[in-house]
Amino acid sequence: MALLFATGNPHKVEQVAASLDRPVIQTTIDLPEIQAVDVRDVIEEKTRAAFGMVKQPVLVEDTSLAFHAWNGLPGALIKWFLDGVGNEGLCKMLSTYEDRRATAETCIGCFDGRAFIVFTGSVEGQITMHPRGERGFGWDPIFQPSGSEKTFAEMSAEEAAPFNMRKLAALQLKTYLNSPDR
Amino acid sequence: MALLFATGNPHKVEQVAASLDRPVIQTTIDLPEIQAVDVRDVIEEKTRAAFGMVKQPVLVEDTSLAFHAWNGLPGALIKWFLDGVGNEGLCKMLSTYEDRRATAETCIGCFDGRAFIVFTGSVEGQITMHPRGERGFGWDPIFQPSGSEKTFAEMSAEEAAPFNMRKLAALQLKTYLNSPDR
Repeated sequence: MALLFATGNPHKVEQVAASLDRPVIQTTIDLPEIQAVDVRDVIEEKTRAAFGMVKQPVLVEDTSLAFHAWNGLPGALIKWFLDGVGNEGLCKMLSTYEDRRATAETCIGCFDGRAFIVFTGSVEGQITMHPRGERGFGWDPIFQPSGSEKTFAEMSAEEAAPFNMRKLAALQLKTYLNSPDR
Repeated sequence: MALLFATGNPHKVEQVAASLDRPVIQTTIDLPEIQAVDVRDVIEEKTRAAFGMVKQPVLVEDTSLAFHAWNGLPGALIKWFLDGVGNEGLCKMLSTYEDRRATAETCIGCFDGRAFIVFTGSVEGQITMHPRGERGFGWDPIFQPSGSEKTFAEMSAEEAAPFNMRKLAALQLKTYLNSPDR
């Protein structure tokens, strides 16, 4: 059975579909986004709202970037930081902090009208001193995963694959969907 | 007629009541807070939701602190910054920026089931190098309004009165409530 995925970003649909063994259909609906730093707090409300609109099982995804020195900020609020100061600004705001570690996390929420489940994939890394690289989108130019000398924006698709936190979350979703107990 | 004010903060009720010529009754209800930097985007949804719960004319207030160097951040997201890094952290994040100007803004939303109106009071100032003073709450120790050498947290109630952006918004609300055309 095909799964609906509520997102405005076709790249995310491709990435999730590549990890599942069933079709994924993009739906662009406008979802409420409550204020929270923890992406798990945001995702449940969005997923339930999406189900209320499409009336069938639906996926919603949200990604967060948590700076350790800032106790989790920007977290799920990352897009507002990017809108406000951009990647260069984020590097500058962090420049007086020694600890540049960050956790990138993707949550995929799944709601079928009865059960809400959230699948999380996360990758540790650090924030670079300045943006580097032209590939990808969002904060890819400033996040360098642990074990790599390159930022996401400097990596080819093959180089980035082992660090893909969206794929990690999607693989858990696949296991759940194929579980015989479900 | 008494007005309901949906807020968890009794100090805000006192401040608004002092500017109006009618009783203001606090109601503590849990309101949805959508993600936005501009406080005006947050307030309408909250006010309409509050009316849906209390079924009578209701006020909702939200305050934002916008740093010029950050293009409006933290704005309405200020409470997440305070939770994450506190006032000292905000000063530190801004320490590599020369422009320390900030705009403090209070919006009071009013909805009576027909019309939604928002009243705004704002005060210009700057963010101090470090928190100063023990009075007030929230970001009061780091905001020094233009025309004063003191932060809000260093001022007596009398000293702070001319810079009270909540009062400025409440006075506009009073004018509206007493308007014969209403």
